[in-house]
Amino acid sequence: MSLAVATAVDVAGLVDRARDGEPRAVARLISLVEQGSAQLPLVAAALAPHTGHARVIGITGAPGVGKSTSTNALVRAFREQDKRVAVIAVDPSSPFSGGALLGDRVRMGDHATDPGVFIRSMATRGHLGGLSWATPQALRVLDAAGFDVIIVETVGVGQSEVEIVALADTTLVLLAPGMGDGIQAAKAGILEIADVFVVNKADRDGADQTARDLKYMISLGRKDREGPSWRVPVVKTVAARMEGLDRVVEAITEHQSWMAEHGELTERRLRRAGAEIEAIAVERVRTRFGPVDQLAKRVVEGELDPFAAAELLISGNLRP
Amino acid sequence: MSLAVATAVDVAGLVDRARDGEPRAVARLISLVEQGSAQLPLVAAALAPHTGHARVIGITGAPGVGKSTSTNALVRAFREQDKRVAVIAVDPSSPFSGGALLGDRVRMGDHATDPGVFIRSMATRGHLGGLSWATPQALRVLDAAGFDVIIVETVGVGQSEVEIVALADTTLVLLAPGMGDGIQAAKAGILEIADVFVVNKADRDGADQTARDLKYMISLGRKDREGPSWRVPVVKTVAARMEGLDRVVEAITEHQSWMAEHGELTERRLRRAGAEIEAIAVERVRTRFGPVDQLAKRVVEGELDPFAAAELLISGNLRP
Repeated sequence: MSLAVATAVDVAGLVDRARDGEPRAVARLISLVEQGSAQLPLVAAALAPHTGHARVIGITGAPGVGKSTSTNALVRAFREQDKRVAVIAVDPSSPFSGGALLGDRVRMGDHATDPGVFIRSMATRGHLGGLSWATPQALRVLDAAGFDVIIVETVGVGQSEVEIVALADTTLVLLAPGMGDGIQAAKAGILEIADVFVVNKADRDGADQTARDLKYMISLGRKDREGPSWRVPVVKTVAARMEGLDRVVEAITEHQSWMAEHGELTERRLRRAGAEIEAIAVERVRTRFGPVDQLAKRVVEGELDPFAAAELLISGNLRP
Repeated sequence: MSLAVATAVDVAGLVDRARDGEPRAVARLISLVEQGSAQLPLVAAALAPHTGHARVIGITGAPGVGKSTSTNALVRAFREQDKRVAVIAVDPSSPFSGGALLGDRVRMGDHATDPGVFIRSMATRGHLGGLSWATPQALRVLDAAGFDVIIVETVGVGQSEVEIVALADTTLVLLAPGMGDGIQAAKAGILEIADVFVVNKADRDGADQTARDLKYMISLGRKDREGPSWRVPVVKTVAARMEGLDRVVEAITEHQSWMAEHGELTERRLRRAGAEIEAIAVERVRTRFGPVDQLAKRVVEGELDPFAAAELLISGNLRP
């Protein structure tokens, strides 16, 4: 009992220090979250009253479109507005290190010495629900720590990656000229989630064509929707030279004003919280399941089908 | 009650017709599975005694490496051995059609008129657990329908896609020269899941370098492992000209002999069945949760943290 109390005090202390802007306390809290620490509920309870202020911006796109460069440029643009900015870069885990492959130092780049910037790589854990579990909690840490803007960057091809980016208030989808036509973009499942399209490397051949293709696909998509809908802008940038970044920040601001006006920001945050609660509940229930080995054996042998096995797993009886 | 009996008869009839090699019955069963039909448990029970015979081959790799061409070539190579072959191509869903973007007809290519080949696109549904739920059931349909080889093709970048391919007995990871260095491959999280590496488009500059890089990374990875381990081969192909496909089939056969010898095939199928049972159980439990709206509202307002909310969701009480 006294141990639990001591632990609770530590967590509260960490949260206080994180809220005072101490980067090591922020990093420690994210590690607790990422490791699925037993103290998670305590951490979450301590953070809750301080959340809801940060705006969350998702950045995604295929490899090679310049996501990291754009993230860096965007951090710089927000810093010029005196915003405190945090970045979470979600990397598929390396099988060898078990962690994020690009170290945080590699990513720090321009902002290594800027106390108003916090950058963190998170590894994907390779188990179902891993990302949808840990990333929202990391967002809560950064939100409670008082960052004005949180950028979540993911490789935007897979289903889980799309789900992470869907956590954002505003989602930027990056493309580059010559990275494949509109069908590639649609295949990646990214048309639906974009609030702002960014055609990066716009000094290359084909940038105008890519922008035109996107606008055409946006116009096709809009017909299917009911009610007022946000007109997704297409912005051209050369992130490496900071060109077009002002327009990106403007588009983000416009999108957030639009959402506030149409009640969409609240809607989105309710959906996000609902998904988060459900993901945690599912994970909790999963840990209460008994061992699955005997059931798996019977399914492999064709004696039992997986649905019947699942019912047995839930009821806790290994024999019918 | 009589309706339930009638339904049961229909499902049994469909399964019989699928086992007689009727493609429309196979397609209908997969549709039932994909739509998460209420008849799923009946379908699964009728299939179970007939499963466990097909070998499942996963094919994955980044966009542009030639997955579809390689799948087509592999189908042709297996057809030359008189195997019946089924292909499941998992595409991220289009926001506009809600279904797979590349129609089955586009994919049929060479095999449109071959009764020994069945090709099906499955859309990713965009909800957590969607893929891990539907794809194994589709595999069961095809297995019970008597296909010797089932090829599952996915875009291999995201976490969910990696999980689908992990359903396979043998997983091929495709790369192409000039698609980025070994770090890109490692970032995609695909080194760990490869049983066979295929360097496609091997007539291009850099193919030898890509193969050498892969072999080096494989040698690094092996040191961490205990016990006997499969020596992952690297095969060069030009799938568009059917070059190297014999060697791919040979590598698959060798891998499956190795697995049989080391008890790994059974191990893998037990893990697969266990994951399948758990995914179904989780989904079943999820459907029993009450509405999450009020809890989400309290979380958004900072009144409740998501862990406490999850406990309330599980206990079914919306007020503490």
